[in-house]
Amino acid sequence: MTAADQEEGMAMQVNHVRHVLAVASGKGGVGKSLVSAMAAVALAREGLRVGVLDADITGPSIPRLFGITTHPEPSMVGIVPPQTALGIRIISMNLFLDDAGQAVIWRGPLLTSAIKQFWTDVAWGDLDVLIVDLPPGTADVPLTAFQSLPIDGILMVTTPQELAGMIVEKAAGLAQQMHKHILGVVENMALTQCPHCGERFELFGPSHAQELADRIGAPLLARLP
Amino acid sequence: MTAADQEEGMAMQVNHVRHVLAVASGKGGVGKSLVSAMAAVALAREGLRVGVLDADITGPSIPRLFGITTHPEPSMVGIVPPQTALGIRIISMNLFLDDAGQAVIWRGPLLTSAIKQFWTDVAWGDLDVLIVDLPPGTADVPLTAFQSLPIDGILMVTTPQELAGMIVEKAAGLAQQMHKHILGVVENMALTQCPHCGERFELFGPSHAQELADRIGAPLLARLP
Repeated sequence: MTAADQEEGMAMQVNHVRHVLAVASGKGGVGKSLVSAMAAVALAREGLRVGVLDADITGPSIPRLFGITTHPEPSMVGIVPPQTALGIRIISMNLFLDDAGQAVIWRGPLLTSAIKQFWTDVAWGDLDVLIVDLPPGTADVPLTAFQSLPIDGILMVTTPQELAGMIVEKAAGLAQQMHKHILGVVENMALTQCPHCGERFELFGPSHAQELADRIGAPLLARLP
Repeated sequence: MTAADQEEGMAMQVNHVRHVLAVASGKGGVGKSLVSAMAAVALAREGLRVGVLDADITGPSIPRLFGITTHPEPSMVGIVPPQTALGIRIISMNLFLDDAGQAVIWRGPLLTSAIKQFWTDVAWGDLDVLIVDLPPGTADVPLTAFQSLPIDGILMVTTPQELAGMIVEKAAGLAQQMHKHILGVVENMALTQCPHCGERFELFGPSHAQELADRIGAPLLARLP
């Protein structure tokens, strides 16, 4: 048994994660990371112990959203995730880089391995909820997350454009093929407010979120500005 | 030699593509596909022969943007790309699916193979410019495109948010490591107009595109609404 195996074993022994919630979309730039961060803050304010696993290895947004730049520290029981002011534990590829703008040029097998290690080698400790912020697409990372992590439910994030709905449907198809439960659809960027006249308007035109929710058989949970 | 090898040889023999232009970002949802489509239309209107290779296998937007649903046809010299009204030749994974919302659940090696085939097995014919619309991230697909396609230059697409700039910088890092020339930066979603009072405002706050352009050493070419 190598030192790495021991560490892996140790982290898995001390970790107790009650629920794993994935935030997915298929489409990029719809605000998956923002929804992940907002959900984490809302749950932490309810008094729950929350972690966020940033599964977007090549385009990680979570550290910047929380203003965290601390490198994770190794320990006897695994990698210790830095915490936000509210005590939310965070792991993201960007926390391991010296320069946040540095490219992580990795093919599928390395991405897959990183996702697994973020689960097995991180000392998450005792968590009520771990939120997994997935990257766009239906390739290696979402597939591995669905196969290797005990995901209890998925929030699907979309925006009002019809094109976004078509691609979100693909991600929902992946989730369904993996027998993962879609908790519901969250529509982001639904409304904006003019700073001049104060009127609110539909920036990207009329919503298609209800149609999308119907097509994938999940409730429309929220329309966010 | 198999039939597939013959076809591949044939397509490569009849194809004559003068310039290959990639549209990249690193970040999803910044409007790479829209910039690709707009550039294709602008060049076609100038009288150039243009093709668009949609390299976003798991989240393809190009067919919907052009309103094309025709399946590509096989021929003696390779797969024949459907054409738009302006004669722009298009290849996208979604044109091969029976249902546009169907998920393509593929790991890296299959994605890599598809990108190579979209170049070698498609009867592009005589083109002045082939535009390659890349997916977000710096993993298998952009890496393979940079390694296997004779890309002459790259347009980097960003949006005003500071977070987008950090991730675009990663894609620029990949391009530079592959010794590919970045032609310039295009900022999308820079301005919007209120439908009530008609005032234009910066939807995502002040631009960081010039700072980004300076950091990656390329000119800021345009700020689009």
